Amino acid sequence: MGDYIRTPISDLERFVVEVMKKLDVPEEDAKIVADVLIRADKRGVESHGVARLRRYINGLKNGLMNPHPDIKIVKETPVSMLVDGDAGLGMVVTYKTMKRCIEKAKESYMCFAAIRNSNHYGIAGYYSLMALEAGMIGFSVTNAAPLVVPTFGKDAVLGTNPISFAVPAKNEKPFVLDMATSTVPRGKLEVYNRMGKKIPLSWATDETGNPTDDAARVLENLKERKGGGLLPLGGGEEETGGHKGYGLAMLVDILSGVFSGGAYGLNVYGTKNAPPNVCHFVGAIRPDTFVDEDELKEGMDGLIRMLKNAPKREGKDRIYIHGEKEFEKEEQNTETVPLYIKVYEDLKSIGEEFGINPPEEA
Amino acid sequence: MGDYIRTPISDLERFVVEVMKKLDVPEEDAKIVADVLIRADKRGVESHGVARLRRYINGLKNGLMNPHPDIKIVKETPVSMLVDGDAGLGMVVTYKTMKRCIEKAKESYMCFAAIRNSNHYGIAGYYSLMALEAGMIGFSVTNAAPLVVPTFGKDAVLGTNPISFAVPAKNEKPFVLDMATSTVPRGKLEVYNRMGKKIPLSWATDETGNPTDDAARVLENLKERKGGGLLPLGGGEEETGGHKGYGLAMLVDILSGVFSGGAYGLNVYGTKNAPPNVCHFVGAIRPDTFVDEDELKEGMDGLIRMLKNAPKREGKDRIYIHGEKEFEKEEQNTETVPLYIKVYEDLKSIGEEFGINPPEEA
Repeated sequence: MGDYIRTPISDLERFVVEVMKKLDVPEEDAKIVADVLIRADKRGVESHGVARLRRYINGLKNGLMNPHPDIKIVKETPVSMLVDGDAGLGMVVTYKTMKRCIEKAKESYMCFAAIRNSNHYGIAGYYSLMALEAGMIGFSVTNAAPLVVPTFGKDAVLGTNPISFAVPAKNEKPFVLDMATSTVPRGKLEVYNRMGKKIPLSWATDETGNPTDDAARVLENLKERKGGGLLPLGGGEEETGGHKGYGLAMLVDILSGVFSGGAYGLNVYGTKNAPPNVCHFVGAIRPDTFVDEDELKEGMDGLIRMLKNAPKREGKDRIYIHGEKEFEKEEQNTETVPLYIKVYEDLKSIGEEFGINPPEEA
Repeated sequence: MGDYIRTPISDLERFVVEVMKKLDVPEEDAKIVADVLIRADKRGVESHGVARLRRYINGLKNGLMNPHPDIKIVKETPVSMLVDGDAGLGMVVTYKTMKRCIEKAKESYMCFAAIRNSNHYGIAGYYSLMALEAGMIGFSVTNAAPLVVPTFGKDAVLGTNPISFAVPAKNEKPFVLDMATSTVPRGKLEVYNRMGKKIPLSWATDETGNPTDDAARVLENLKERKGGGLLPLGGGEEETGGHKGYGLAMLVDILSGVFSGGAYGLNVYGTKNAPPNVCHFVGAIRPDTFVDEDELKEGMDGLIRMLKNAPKREGKDRIYIHGEKEFEKEEQNTETVPLYIKVYEDLKSIGEEFGINPPEEA
C-alpha cells in the first residue's frame, strides 16, 4: 500500500461533512457524500474514496455541481423512475433515488431508475450494497468521462462505465460484482508509470489507436486529448474479445445516458463550463420475485461454495467470489481507515483552506 | 467460409420440421426449433445453426429432451415469471416464455422470467430479437455446460454463459449485443486446431490451470475431463481483467440457475442420463418506460452515429455496432442460407435415417 496513516472513521466523516457544509451542502446531503467516499476507503477502493474529495470541492466551487439540487422525478411507473438530478452531487442524487427505488420495489417486486444530469457518483457498488442492506438484490451502472476506445477506433468515446450487481446469500458473503468495463481504470496506468513498468497490451492504445505498453505515453495523450486511451475488457482486438468489453461499455451508456435522455459518450463532460450531465441507472429487485427468498439464498450459497471449493490452479490456493476481498477489507476497517500520506496531506491542506481541523491520526 | 453450398430457407425449414415431427415434436413446436436454428445460420452464427440439429435429435432420442413438455408457470407477478420447462427443447420453452413476457411487459412496462429445467436454447440473441420485433427492448441469458475456468481455478465450473441485450434505434440498426462471457467459444479452438495455429494465451488453460497456446491439448482435456478449459473474457489473470469475465459468467448463472431454482455450475449436465436442467433468464422492457419511445430511439441513433463516425485506428476503416455484422449477413441470406459441405452431408444422412428428402441445393 505504500506509506499511509490510519484515521478514525468518525473523525474522517466529521471532516468531510464540515467541508461539504462550508460549500453550502446541507448536512443531510453532506453525510451521504461522506458515507459514499469513506465506504470506498473501507472496502479498499482508495481510488474512489476521500482521495477524490478535492474533485467534488472543485465542482461545487466552480458551479458545475449544485449543492441544492431540485431532484425531480420526471416520469414514474410502479416499476420505474426517470430522474433529473439538477446537476447535484452524484452521491446525493443516486442515494435518494435508490432509496425510493427500494421502497417502490417492496411494493412492485422490482424498480429501476434512469438518472440524468448528475455528477460522478463514487463507487457503483455503493448503491447495489444499499439494496443488499435493505434485503434486496441491487443493480447500479453509470457512464463517465470518455476514456475508452471502441474496437477499431482511434480515440476514446466511452467511459470506463462500471457495472455493479449484488445478490444476497444465506451463510456465505453476498456476491457483489463491481467492475469497470475497461480492462483497467486510468489509475492503474498511473501506478505502472510510477514504477516504470511496461503495461500489458490489453490495457491501452497509443495516439494511432494501436495497443501500446507505454503508460506514460497513454496518460500524456489522454491529458492532451491527442488520441488513444484505455481499452475495453478483452483488449484491442476481436481475437481477444475486445468487442465484448466495448459492447458492455456501450450497454452501460445506453442504460444510463440513452434511457435517461441525458448525455452519452463524448457528450458526458462534453461542454466546457457546463455541468457534465453524468447519467446513472440503478435498480432493486425483491429476492422473492422468482424462487422464494430462502431458496434464492441457499442457491447462492451452493454456487459460491462450488466455486470456492473447486480445484485451484497450480500455485494458487484460493478462488475468490466478487466482493469477497472488499468485505474482508471492511472487516479490517471498522474503526479506522488507512489513507496514503499524499491523500492525508491533501486533506490537511483542504482543512487549512476551510479553517477545519484535519482528520486525526489514529 | 470454406466449401459450402446454399439451400433455400423454406426447404431447410421443411426439413427441420419434418425431422422434429418424426421425433414426436408437435408441428407448432417443430417450427419454433427450425426458426431458431435457421435464424442463427441467416445471421452467420453457423455454430448455433442447423449444424446442431443432431444434438437435438440425440436429446429427443435418448429421452433427455421432452417433445411434449408440460411447461409450467410456477410463480407469477405482474413483472415476473418463474417457469419450469419440464425438460422441453430449450427453443420451445424459451420462445413460449418470451412471448408471454412480451405480453406482460405491454401491461406492466417490463417482465422478466427465470426458467429452469430446460435444454440448450440456441443463440441467446434470438429471444432479445423477439422482443425487438415486438417493439420492445429484449434481454436474454443462459447457463450452459461447464467449460469455463474461474480465475485461479484449475477446472471448468461455469458455462460460456452468453448475454444478449437488444435496444431499438430509429434510423440506425438496433443494438444487439450477443456475447459469450468466455473470451471465445470452444468452436474457435477447434478452428485454430484444424489450422495448426497457436491460440492466444487469454483463451484457455491446460490441465494445471495455466494459460496455454495449445488448442489440441485443451480440447483433449475438456473431452476427457482432465482439467483446464476456456478462460473468461479478460483471460486467466487479474492483471488482464479475467476476474471480470468470471464475474459476468457467474452473474449469468445466478440469473439463470439460482433465480430459477434450477441447476448452476457443475450441476448443469451434472447427472448422467438425466435431463441437463439448463436454465435461462429472459425479459422484455417497454421502450417508453423511461424517456418516451421516440426520444429513446433518437438517443440510440445519436450514440450509434457517434461511435461509427469516430476516428478509426490505423489500418481500420470501420467501427462496428453490436449486431451490425449479423444484420448485414441476414440481408444477404433472405432466400437461401449457406451450409458447410460437412453440415450439409450430415443433414443428408439425417434425411436418410428418417426417410426425409434432404434440403435442396439452391
